[in-house]
Amino acid sequence: MIQLSRSQIEALVSVDAETAEAVRDAYRAISDGRANLPPVGYLGFPEAHGDCHIKYGHIAGDAVFAVKIASGFYDNPAKGLPSSTGVVLVFSALTGQMEALLADEGYLTDLRTGLGGAVASLALCRPDARRFLIVGSGTQAYWLARSLQSLAPKAEIAIWGRNPDRAGALCARLDGVTVAPDLESACRAADVILTATPAAAPLVRADWIRPGCHITAIGADSPGKQELETALVARAQLRVADSLSQCLDHGEFAHAHAAGLIGPDHCVELGAILSGAAAGRQGPDDITVADLTGLATQDIAMARCVLARAKGTA
Amino acid sequence: MIQLSRSQIEALVSVDAETAEAVRDAYRAISDGRANLPPVGYLGFPEAHGDCHIKYGHIAGDAVFAVKIASGFYDNPAKGLPSSTGVVLVFSALTGQMEALLADEGYLTDLRTGLGGAVASLALCRPDARRFLIVGSGTQAYWLARSLQSLAPKAEIAIWGRNPDRAGALCARLDGVTVAPDLESACRAADVILTATPAAAPLVRADWIRPGCHITAIGADSPGKQELETALVARAQLRVADSLSQCLDHGEFAHAHAAGLIGPDHCVELGAILSGAAAGRQGPDDITVADLTGLATQDIAMARCVLARAKGTA
Repeated sequence: MIQLSRSQIEALVSVDAETAEAVRDAYRAISDGRANLPPVGYLGFPEAHGDCHIKYGHIAGDAVFAVKIASGFYDNPAKGLPSSTGVVLVFSALTGQMEALLADEGYLTDLRTGLGGAVASLALCRPDARRFLIVGSGTQAYWLARSLQSLAPKAEIAIWGRNPDRAGALCARLDGVTVAPDLESACRAADVILTATPAAAPLVRADWIRPGCHITAIGADSPGKQELETALVARAQLRVADSLSQCLDHGEFAHAHAAGLIGPDHCVELGAILSGAAAGRQGPDDITVADLTGLATQDIAMARCVLARAKGTA
Repeated sequence: MIQLSRSQIEALVSVDAETAEAVRDAYRAISDGRANLPPVGYLGFPEAHGDCHIKYGHIAGDAVFAVKIASGFYDNPAKGLPSSTGVVLVFSALTGQMEALLADEGYLTDLRTGLGGAVASLALCRPDARRFLIVGSGTQAYWLARSLQSLAPKAEIAIWGRNPDRAGALCARLDGVTVAPDLESACRAADVILTATPAAAPLVRADWIRPGCHITAIGADSPGKQELETALVARAQLRVADSLSQCLDHGEFAHAHAAGLIGPDHCVELGAILSGAAAGRQGPDDITVADLTGLATQDIAMARCVLARAKGTA
């Protein structure tokens, strides 16, 4: 059995083109019927301010399947521990034998979420998009920036955070990324906006968005979270979901859906666009919105990449 | 992180009184509301003749929670691999940190199922029961016998198997256990019958059962399996379920339930009897039947026992 620590995994996979392609394939697998993704398991620990999600699934044809167990315990920082942690277990899809324990401490989730945001944004934005705004200054903002830098080297990236010191500290870790002092003016100037916050009330207003802008929202991954004004989602010419069922249930699109403004017929799955089965952006002035809630196929794809490289077969 | 192999785990926990008490407590936790048990996760691999079950949960007050990932790949023996395998992961319920990887290869499941069958049978049979019949000659029959020998040293144990050679080989591994040549006469003579087969059609007939007999059925753990004639379940004076919802859905009781012969009000949970909240056997001539489908609380209890002994705190 292969057993890898976070630092070993970091040395094997990062924001490279091959890993990005694995993320793209993971989106396609959702939409072309290759993915077998049972409902996400959930265990809550209200007294300890914690929860645990168990994501698992299999992509038809893959030699392995993966089970990701990821926890968030929000009193951990006071104990000197990270609030989020996780492991990914990889099993043979032919014999059920355990092949690997990836003690990635959430690294693979951060990586695939960052790559996913970049992949979706670059697939849906105007080809001439240059000004990228990241809203949020946490771990996910870092990986969005790193992924954009890798996949779109000409992108001019700015970061806005509610806490300017935190945004400044993040930019200091990222070569050539600047702090956006004001959210409204930064949104008005952006060709592409990527939101990665835990906001429970809309941050980005519909009337701040210029024609042709693309927005990717990755913060709303559970009920009650919202980053974009509902009117912005309703007004977009194209709404793209990583998973229709998840996005309408508890993603960014859930609010417009609950308000009766959109339904499944008003959204397209990202995988269908990436495979060419559905149309993406139609014109240079379209406003497009992608809602990414996170999928176990991405975890499977990351696990497959790590395993292939650890075995020297990639 | 503690990491233990099957042989290391075997050296830590077996059919001892303390582990049996942990199994009893795991049943009580189901019935007294301490257990948080989300639905079991399932992933099928029809082309590889395999499947994977993910059982997880938490017992209120426990410092740890457990996730068990158990697979059955039925072409494995031809590849020189066991058909069943599994791992149990143990996490802190206070911080979410992974505490242990128990690579038990299914040992803990076999052990807790054997102990569970013995615990249920001894709680429900007549105090003067002596003749115990185990129906089945597989791994589970072995652990039922070992558990009975440990918890009821005076039990006279016989084993019947469809394949007499296999039953003979099993008895040769078990001190003082004899082969029952004929199922009907063995059932007619038994004070307690424990069934542990993958039967899809009833093996044990209602009119073979004498007054006062207790039967524990552990084979029916998924839809389509049945070990006892439906009339036997319907006729019993006491029906005991490890989990009412599981047993009526896909356990031994599901058949009588589907036939409209019994409902939830005609069954009692084992944990309620073990805690004294519900009555068990009422008279020496009652026929009692227990249906055990398997619960993640038992996996949690096993994980807790292993961890405590590995840390030297048990």
